[in-house]
Amino acid sequence: MTNNKISINRVALIGVGMIGGSFIWSLKRAGVINHVIGVDINFSELETATELGIIDSKSSLDSLHDIDMIVLATPVGAMASVFSALKNKDFINTALITDVGSTKQSVIDAAQQGLGFLPKNFVPSHPIAGREHIGIQHAEEMMFYGHRAIITPHANTDSDAIDTIKSLWEHCGASVDIMTAENHDKILAATSHLPHVLAYGLMESLTTTEYENPIFDYAAGGFKSFTRTASSNPIMWRDICLNNKTDILYWLDHYQQTLSELRELIANEQGDKIEEIFQRSKSERDKYLVNKVN
Amino acid sequence: MTNNKISINRVALIGVGMIGGSFIWSLKRAGVINHVIGVDINFSELETATELGIIDSKSSLDSLHDIDMIVLATPVGAMASVFSALKNKDFINTALITDVGSTKQSVIDAAQQGLGFLPKNFVPSHPIAGREHIGIQHAEEMMFYGHRAIITPHANTDSDAIDTIKSLWEHCGASVDIMTAENHDKILAATSHLPHVLAYGLMESLTTTEYENPIFDYAAGGFKSFTRTASSNPIMWRDICLNNKTDILYWLDHYQQTLSELRELIANEQGDKIEEIFQRSKSERDKYLVNKVN
Repeated sequence: MTNNKISINRVALIGVGMIGGSFIWSLKRAGVINHVIGVDINFSELETATELGIIDSKSSLDSLHDIDMIVLATPVGAMASVFSALKNKDFINTALITDVGSTKQSVIDAAQQGLGFLPKNFVPSHPIAGREHIGIQHAEEMMFYGHRAIITPHANTDSDAIDTIKSLWEHCGASVDIMTAENHDKILAATSHLPHVLAYGLMESLTTTEYENPIFDYAAGGFKSFTRTASSNPIMWRDICLNNKTDILYWLDHYQQTLSELRELIANEQGDKIEEIFQRSKSERDKYLVNKVN
Repeated sequence: MTNNKISINRVALIGVGMIGGSFIWSLKRAGVINHVIGVDINFSELETATELGIIDSKSSLDSLHDIDMIVLATPVGAMASVFSALKNKDFINTALITDVGSTKQSVIDAAQQGLGFLPKNFVPSHPIAGREHIGIQHAEEMMFYGHRAIITPHANTDSDAIDTIKSLWEHCGASVDIMTAENHDKILAATSHLPHVLAYGLMESLTTTEYENPIFDYAAGGFKSFTRTASSNPIMWRDICLNNKTDILYWLDHYQQTLSELRELIANEQGDKIEEIFQRSKSERDKYLVNKVN
């Protein structure tokens, strides 16, 4: 552990929103980063981030200079063009680079595509925490405390850079796992991307029906929980769908198959089998609650 | 409003669990019911209910006598046999009868089937609130405060009986709506029954996969919310599936169609259309949050 020794002077936060803002906020409070330069296409986010003390100054991508660490926190679909804009910067070979994107192979591909190579100091990462809200005003200093963060090094990632990024997440209170981008994308497609698609799908399904009664008036706590993720950022989740397509479709197809089986059991009134599935689901879910880190 | 005048002496709570227990608890504290007799096949639930002060004595169905109100709170699949067991009781024609089941036409059918007729004092009802827990120890005096309760009278329900049951739910702090059992079942299939089936389905789908990594280790808040209802009572939900089959299949088929369309948009990388659906879903969900009673 080299936690105590980390001191990073100039940090560029590219994409000033809830997740990147929470990461920066936490690192600032931990005293491991100094001056943060915010870059965002949305001027009001930069204003709010300044008021909150999350960023210290503003810049455009073109004007960035003397950067010691880059935190990419845009929707994943925008990352290739960000890397491309940074291609000729001196600091791209020296700065520590990380991101907080929900898909990891696509971010590695975006770096390769935008830069033409993979910087050895680029350590892709993804904190397993969030809220269904949008914008820097929802940043929380403790967002990642007690949660997991995943680091997915590419083939040439420098081990010191990995250690530093790991330590930064630990400064946020996160417990860090290192795995391949491939495993990350497959696992997160199951536990995060699929449920988001399913929740958006339920809202869409119930609002595109011919049944005209005001059904949402009679939606209680279960519905509210189930659809929570459908209040998430549509652009961010569009990008995740496009950037982890294969894994999401893998789980979605498997889910549709499970639903079709369940449909037949209900249609045929096979109570014993329905109960068996509900019982197994309940016990798996209760087990998950006991075991989970956060 | 005749709230102040209600005073019911002997109440039979048949099915001593979380929802029925919460209803009774709330009515006791409001001072509108007096002595509660608990009936349940599970002896430990009766013990806990006694310790909590929710019931005052225990009985079997056969031994019930001099009952002024019957509250049926078993899983809906058990209600026909309960009605049948009460068929020859003197009080079946005089007692106020209500239930707290999640399906309403099936409960009316169960009364007709078990008794051979529909008592005029039978007022089917359903509070739109609950928890994913099981058992009387999860009963809460304030469970229904600020929530809706739905009353679905049958063709011959006495209007005074409706007024009294309405008033009892209002004593629990609920806001009461009266509608047909048909409308209730269709609406609740959409907002409650379907999401439960989908959440059980997700747990089942993710635990019946060939992918062997420990995926639940990386499940965060969105997953936890989405699957909350999968921790619900398997027997209760089996019965709901069997007793509201047609409406559940109606919405399930519509949902699967929506998912298939979404699947094609992802497969074809139609980002604009995906974003449009996610945006619409988000705004409908956000609108629901603003409008909802509870």
